[in-house]
Amino acid sequence: MYRTHTNGELRINAVDKEVVLSGWVQKVRDKGFMIWVDLRDRYGITQLIFDEERTSKEVMQAASELSREYVIRVTGTVIERESKNPQLPTGDIEILVKELTVLNRSKTPPFTIEDETDGGEDLRMKYRYLDIRRTPIRENLILRHQVSMEVRNYLSQKDFIEVETPYLIKSTPEGARDFVVPSRMNKGQFYALPQSPQTFKQLLMVGGMDKYFQIVRCFRDEDLRADRQPEFTQIDCEMAFVTQEDILNTFEGLTKHLLKAIKGVEVSEFPRMTYEDAMRLYGNDKPDIRFGMQFGELNEAAKHRDFNVFNQAELIIGIAVPNGNSFSRKEIDALINWVKRPQVGAMGMVYVRCNEDGTFKSSVDKFYQEEDFAKWAEITGAKPNDLILILSGDTHKVRPQMSALRMHLGAQLGLRKKDEFAPLWVVDFPLLEWDEETGRYYAMHHPFTAPKAESIQLLESNPGAVKANAYDLVLNGNEIGGGSIRIHDKETQSEIFKFLGFSPEEARKQFGFLMDAFEFGSPPHGGIAFGLDRLAAILGGQESIRDFIAFPKNNAGRDVMIDAPAPLDEEQLKELNLNLQIDEADSSIPRH
Amino acid sequence: MYRTHTNGELRINAVDKEVVLSGWVQKVRDKGFMIWVDLRDRYGITQLIFDEERTSKEVMQAASELSREYVIRVTGTVIERESKNPQLPTGDIEILVKELTVLNRSKTPPFTIEDETDGGEDLRMKYRYLDIRRTPIRENLILRHQVSMEVRNYLSQKDFIEVETPYLIKSTPEGARDFVVPSRMNKGQFYALPQSPQTFKQLLMVGGMDKYFQIVRCFRDEDLRADRQPEFTQIDCEMAFVTQEDILNTFEGLTKHLLKAIKGVEVSEFPRMTYEDAMRLYGNDKPDIRFGMQFGELNEAAKHRDFNVFNQAELIIGIAVPNGNSFSRKEIDALINWVKRPQVGAMGMVYVRCNEDGTFKSSVDKFYQEEDFAKWAEITGAKPNDLILILSGDTHKVRPQMSALRMHLGAQLGLRKKDEFAPLWVVDFPLLEWDEETGRYYAMHHPFTAPKAESIQLLESNPGAVKANAYDLVLNGNEIGGGSIRIHDKETQSEIFKFLGFSPEEARKQFGFLMDAFEFGSPPHGGIAFGLDRLAAILGGQESIRDFIAFPKNNAGRDVMIDAPAPLDEEQLKELNLNLQIDEADSSIPRH
Repeated sequence: MYRTHTNGELRINAVDKEVVLSGWVQKVRDKGFMIWVDLRDRYGITQLIFDEERTSKEVMQAASELSREYVIRVTGTVIERESKNPQLPTGDIEILVKELTVLNRSKTPPFTIEDETDGGEDLRMKYRYLDIRRTPIRENLILRHQVSMEVRNYLSQKDFIEVETPYLIKSTPEGARDFVVPSRMNKGQFYALPQSPQTFKQLLMVGGMDKYFQIVRCFRDEDLRADRQPEFTQIDCEMAFVTQEDILNTFEGLTKHLLKAIKGVEVSEFPRMTYEDAMRLYGNDKPDIRFGMQFGELNEAAKHRDFNVFNQAELIIGIAVPNGNSFSRKEIDALINWVKRPQVGAMGMVYVRCNEDGTFKSSVDKFYQEEDFAKWAEITGAKPNDLILILSGDTHKVRPQMSALRMHLGAQLGLRKKDEFAPLWVVDFPLLEWDEETGRYYAMHHPFTAPKAESIQLLESNPGAVKANAYDLVLNGNEIGGGSIRIHDKETQSEIFKFLGFSPEEARKQFGFLMDAFEFGSPPHGGIAFGLDRLAAILGGQESIRDFIAFPKNNAGRDVMIDAPAPLDEEQLKELNLNLQIDEADSSIPRH
Repeated sequence: MYRTHTNGELRINAVDKEVVLSGWVQKVRDKGFMIWVDLRDRYGITQLIFDEERTSKEVMQAASELSREYVIRVTGTVIERESKNPQLPTGDIEILVKELTVLNRSKTPPFTIEDETDGGEDLRMKYRYLDIRRTPIRENLILRHQVSMEVRNYLSQKDFIEVETPYLIKSTPEGARDFVVPSRMNKGQFYALPQSPQTFKQLLMVGGMDKYFQIVRCFRDEDLRADRQPEFTQIDCEMAFVTQEDILNTFEGLTKHLLKAIKGVEVSEFPRMTYEDAMRLYGNDKPDIRFGMQFGELNEAAKHRDFNVFNQAELIIGIAVPNGNSFSRKEIDALINWVKRPQVGAMGMVYVRCNEDGTFKSSVDKFYQEEDFAKWAEITGAKPNDLILILSGDTHKVRPQMSALRMHLGAQLGLRKKDEFAPLWVVDFPLLEWDEETGRYYAMHHPFTAPKAESIQLLESNPGAVKANAYDLVLNGNEIGGGSIRIHDKETQSEIFKFLGFSPEEARKQFGFLMDAFEFGSPPHGGIAFGLDRLAAILGGQESIRDFIAFPKNNAGRDVMIDAPAPLDEEQLKELNLNLQIDEADSSIPRH
């Protein structure tokens, strides 16, 4: 037997008990005649004491040879500590050790196993199994487990059935790139890994499952931007016989439940905002509404003077920074430099100081008058002692620029509070999105999204104006979920495929099974999917998803711990009927 | 709004309520002046009534045009039925329809959507979304969901944490074939899909997670035998600081809980049997102990006469078929033919009838005497009116032959009862298994399994005799779970790798990360994995797993519904730096 108790369990009422504990050596304090060891496991830390007078010579000797991260088992008696540690749940007691067994030794770990480690990201990832021993990472993984359990139990109680859909499916070139899997049994053919179980969950609705969910891995072979993973986990949901309203209510219920169960936070009804309003007021379809600084559009109030920068701009946006008048000239210059960085890309920034006495001082004083500034203050909601910051330019550029500035200021001013949760539904998304590069429209959500009945007739005349029954759930400036009511009849689906440039043959080849299914009594249906990695990170109060994934990949898509991907044996390639086609220059691939 | 109630919900107390229902048309009975429609959804069936006198002309007309599998919404009033249907939970009421909307029409489905369908396997798989509408399939999927939920809640309450491990990992040629995934970002390199998360769960133990589980998809590129799937689901579990005894107790607890929660069956302590005993008594390492007919070994009692067949056999096994004396000569001949089929492969079979009066009548009367038969009856446990069946030959052939016969008879005699559950632990598996074909030993479980301390010294002298800390959980003749205590030190692991023919370089290349991990304080650990597909099927009282998987693949590894795998676009292959290497003869791959 390795233990009678865990290391987080013993309290003062256990005094005099004989116990067996196992775990890792967190710390050794060796005073010669007395040795204290902090013994750690997932559940906590218990102090062991070895004492010349009460512990045998052999055990003293063995204890003196212990070192960090050794795995040991001890037998001993629970005694009351002389100097108690109120920081520790087990801090009232210690174990007077009688027997000690070293279960495994440890080399000195490459970084310290402490809450604040000295290990850099690369080292931590290479030795992820040691990183996971650290309390913050362990707690992230436990939080993620709790979120999954709460989701499953909540949805299951609401009659949702978790159905597992296949991972070996078919590649569909539309959308992001698929990871593919060569089939040995079907020569020259490939499976693809799902980017999401979209079509399968729709088929489950056609199949009468009524309410489906699945916590499911999804795969996208994208060039990885920061904080994206080639494999990620989705809480995937679908319901039949529902309107958009039913779905918003159901998943608002789930989200409220999670906030309550995981964070103890009660949130009342979630506000809703149209996509148009989100873009106009926040320059962004996932606004962080934990703080204000809504955009004020200043075109009318700023284009009547001789300031050419504004006069030539498509859109002029101002925001009021609360108490921003206290910013020094240097601080304002830093903000100007910040928006001019290539990542943001603004050409410059105008500012207006709103003085305590109701007067203004601005960088465009020679073009504008007090009454102009007063108007701008009114539009942006600036009060005395605020600072108005103004950007201008093309709408599709200036909005994201101002959004970035707003988020930057929100962080700088401490307005993006970790333990505050501000959910928001963004609704009425456009059905289609114009792509400059390829000169065509794409489905903004995906090609199965139902257009709003009242705007479908615009599809030919003004495609960009067609609205979809699509919605996102935004939490603290992150899209945590998104979904739509789906098309459920073959005619509309064919029309949309055609509009998106699918020939009837292509549509048939890729989605024939779905079109067929729609002819056998497909019910109205819709759904939503949440990003579990992101949701767990936000509930954990963190920005990066990487430490909420047990074994994440780096930005090159590599698992540096197991060293994957890796070259295959010739034999394996041959069985798959594959040849590597490698340029001369690449022919000697280094093994990472 | 599509519905106020589901179709399984309304009872007599709802009479006079105005309700909205949606669902599929299961059946239409049109009497002209009156039309009845059975409306179906996941929750049940509700009868609708359209009545010339009380329903408007338009609605009557629309109702008369309804057909099987149409999707409709109705508004109407709950009324008491004149002739109640006690078979149906909603059988006391019906809905007098006021409004009818056809939400979607349906072509005539290719098979009937009934419990007993007229659709063959191929057709059902092609239109799986229609097959899922059938109650038996839907209930299988719901049962599977319930099993998953019970497993998760039980383990979670026992402090297990579900941790998601990666699906894009590294190929290891040992064991079954991997499915591989070419990496676009890492040219010439491949990920592999996991055959199980084995090394990751061990690393989680090294990482101090203490108790881990995951319901996880696994992938094996095997030539598919009947009832195997290229992707399958495992309940994967691992614990640190445990002995084999701890693991058996923990998962006996889980299995008891499942039997109770899912089937309402209470099972007391699970019997345990060594691998050796299982092979000796049942010829099989997963005996179905719902019924007897244990093997009796007759070598000593049958080799002393002139019957050469027995005298030359390595092993002679008899079983006593209860009341088998009632078998006609024809029935016995059928059994003899059955064991001689190539799938079983016996050369012949001897039988002994045990007469009511204590005498015997056998097919080898001329070689043996009454006293021999009496001895055989004693060894096989045959009583008057039983039938002793005897096979002989090489041990490794005759045991599986007799096992097959025993199972065949168990089924024929109705002894393998669907609703009886007989779990069994099989323990003390050999560490190694000799492979005739390659002339070497392989790990019987996997190369991470710990040998029993007391037998490890036999590794060089008598490898086949080394026992492992490995165990299987058997339920009704199926292995539903298997696991082992793992090696947790680098030395033993290196020794085993070496014995299995890994060079130090190969071991390093494939499992270096694990060997490294073992040097940083790896705790003793062990685990188990259950096959969820099989477990769900057995709990559902069925033999085949296919109808417990929403979208299974056929024996060629194809999903015939979505038509996968499929050829890739040239473009995709190019991006992956791959060429297809296809023989001339194969060059025109037909599209299935």
